[in-house]
Amino acid sequence: MNKISPWEVEGQIDYEKIIKDFGLKIIDEKIKEKLKEYTKDLHVLLRRNFYFAHRDLDIILEEYEKEGFFLYTGRGPSGPMHIGHLIPFVFTKWLQEKFDVNVYIQITDDEKFLEPKRKLSFEDTQKWSYENILDIIAVGFDENKTFIFKNTEYIKNFYTLAIKIAKKINFSLVRSVFGFSNQTNIGLIFFPSLEIAPTFFEEKYCLIPASIDQDPFWRIQRDIAESLGKRKAAQISSKFLIPLTGMQGKMSTSKPETAIFLNDDEETVRKKIYKAFSGGQPTVELHRKLGGNPEIDVCFQYLYTFFEEDDKKIEKIREDYKSGAILTGELKEYTIKKINEFLEKHRKEREKTKNKVEKFMYTGKLAQEMWNKIHA
Amino acid sequence: MNKISPWEVEGQIDYEKIIKDFGLKIIDEKIKEKLKEYTKDLHVLLRRNFYFAHRDLDIILEEYEKEGFFLYTGRGPSGPMHIGHLIPFVFTKWLQEKFDVNVYIQITDDEKFLEPKRKLSFEDTQKWSYENILDIIAVGFDENKTFIFKNTEYIKNFYTLAIKIAKKINFSLVRSVFGFSNQTNIGLIFFPSLEIAPTFFEEKYCLIPASIDQDPFWRIQRDIAESLGKRKAAQISSKFLIPLTGMQGKMSTSKPETAIFLNDDEETVRKKIYKAFSGGQPTVELHRKLGGNPEIDVCFQYLYTFFEEDDKKIEKIREDYKSGAILTGELKEYTIKKINEFLEKHRKEREKTKNKVEKFMYTGKLAQEMWNKIHA
Repeated sequence: MNKISPWEVEGQIDYEKIIKDFGLKIIDEKIKEKLKEYTKDLHVLLRRNFYFAHRDLDIILEEYEKEGFFLYTGRGPSGPMHIGHLIPFVFTKWLQEKFDVNVYIQITDDEKFLEPKRKLSFEDTQKWSYENILDIIAVGFDENKTFIFKNTEYIKNFYTLAIKIAKKINFSLVRSVFGFSNQTNIGLIFFPSLEIAPTFFEEKYCLIPASIDQDPFWRIQRDIAESLGKRKAAQISSKFLIPLTGMQGKMSTSKPETAIFLNDDEETVRKKIYKAFSGGQPTVELHRKLGGNPEIDVCFQYLYTFFEEDDKKIEKIREDYKSGAILTGELKEYTIKKINEFLEKHRKEREKTKNKVEKFMYTGKLAQEMWNKIHA
Repeated sequence: MNKISPWEVEGQIDYEKIIKDFGLKIIDEKIKEKLKEYTKDLHVLLRRNFYFAHRDLDIILEEYEKEGFFLYTGRGPSGPMHIGHLIPFVFTKWLQEKFDVNVYIQITDDEKFLEPKRKLSFEDTQKWSYENILDIIAVGFDENKTFIFKNTEYIKNFYTLAIKIAKKINFSLVRSVFGFSNQTNIGLIFFPSLEIAPTFFEEKYCLIPASIDQDPFWRIQRDIAESLGKRKAAQISSKFLIPLTGMQGKMSTSKPETAIFLNDDEETVRKKIYKAFSGGQPTVELHRKLGGNPEIDVCFQYLYTFFEEDDKKIEKIREDYKSGAILTGELKEYTIKKINEFLEKHRKEREKTKNKVEKFMYTGKLAQEMWNKIHA
């Protein structure tokens, strides 16, 4: 691992080191079994260890029947979403369905406006908020148990809570945890209070499905929660979806060559996958003889992580690719087909979401409750 | 001057040096004459140079007929108000009356909660917000042209504007301007954005009557206003009301021995004034012989600044005190009478304000307009 923070992920990522450094626990077979008691099956993202680490997931499961919990995740609306952005929402929706719990989705339009490297106008962040919310809704959340809110709008209802959090956090801390400097603007310096606040939206336990780069927020949350008379949040944390360019870093909107966007058409997906980093050999002859390396092959990794849910099938693909029985071109074609199927289905669902935005943001059962609540 | 910032005023204050250091202009006879063209008379606080410095007041007056302007001031609800807190509101109300303009009054409940030295709970700041608002309304503002708002409530309507401001201000700047350190909490670091925001509530010129310790906010405002496509705010800045203890520092709620509070009863005022620092001689004989020094006498200074509006009378008191014709006890008795008259009238007005809070904060003409407006 080179660098990892909410605003920077670079280099080869050593997830074992992260678990150790960040003080997380691995999602092992034991906790997977415990999960299965409630969920029956396990989501492919859990089976394939894309969600690899947690904090207090064991407590959440132990207390579930007595106390319940709620889910909290979010999205920074900095541009169009790619498949790496959507996957956590697919997983969160699965958790909502299995446990029948409320989901809070924070749209950090303020953060994306304040991040200097983004160079987004406020209007840009509003446009992307709307576009991203359509993608999120398309995943299939329960419209009466899900509240999607933009910070710049919902701030009135949780600013009081945010300043209580802010009072516990000084500049030294955010400088060391987030790498802020003297040049960081005072809006971004304050922002961590706003990302932490929703972990206290209910008195129940909070479970956060998020990618590991958000972990610094949760470490602070857990440091200060009890001094506010509140509960430490639990996490279930994912790896990054690898970029098209290979095993380093993550899919990133700011580097479009690394990502497959949700609105990429079939032909674009085809072109991108054909350019993607491959673990195959340079010629068919060599490939048949030596076989490919699935561990570094972007197509195989996409199939393994998410797009090929059938456990037997994926193992067969792995073996056949390793042996040379499957050629690189064949693996690419299969991946293109799988991704395009997924995107086509997603876009069909997205078409139906425009008249649902009101529900999720303002008029659904949970949304209404939330607009009538001042968090303190 | 030793120290001067919004959160610290100590020592003997050298107002001439402040004018130079802060880049202000003195309120001279020329601008007073210009003011009188509109106001006919001059408020005692102007005649006696309590309001002593300005920025762009000349432009405000030149453009008044063409462009108009609005007034903006505020209050940090950290405790009961003393006479030093009320005087700026008396002056602001006078300006409103003379120019028939809108007034915005920011109640910085967030700031007072976030200031660590205050040790106020959030509930404390809410209690003091309410109590202070009653005192402010009692001054006699126009209920349809005055909007009193608490930051924690109105934040929704101006957070977007605040983050646009915040994006222009980095930690270096607030560290040097406000003396923030690595230990400062991230809520207080963000707060300057919120104090600056109301200077942009209308497209008209903004005139800020405030005490000079708030000047750092306005210097930043003027540095960034044009890059936001907005106008630099004008100021009319006051000295501090001297504390009961003498010519150093200011009346301060955190040092109750320095201040006369608006709810001090007649007997308390008497006791405090009798203890107040005097420019008189230790015995009647010496006083008759040598006379007193009005320049360092707290009673004379209170009369001069505010409580004796009659210009001839105050000069006679000055001469008679200097000559020894007025004894210290007599001066004190006169001051007690004047202050108690003022406080009695204030408290009578305050009694009538409880049913007006709604108007000023939510239902008056300007308040309604403001609640329907998102500042961007």
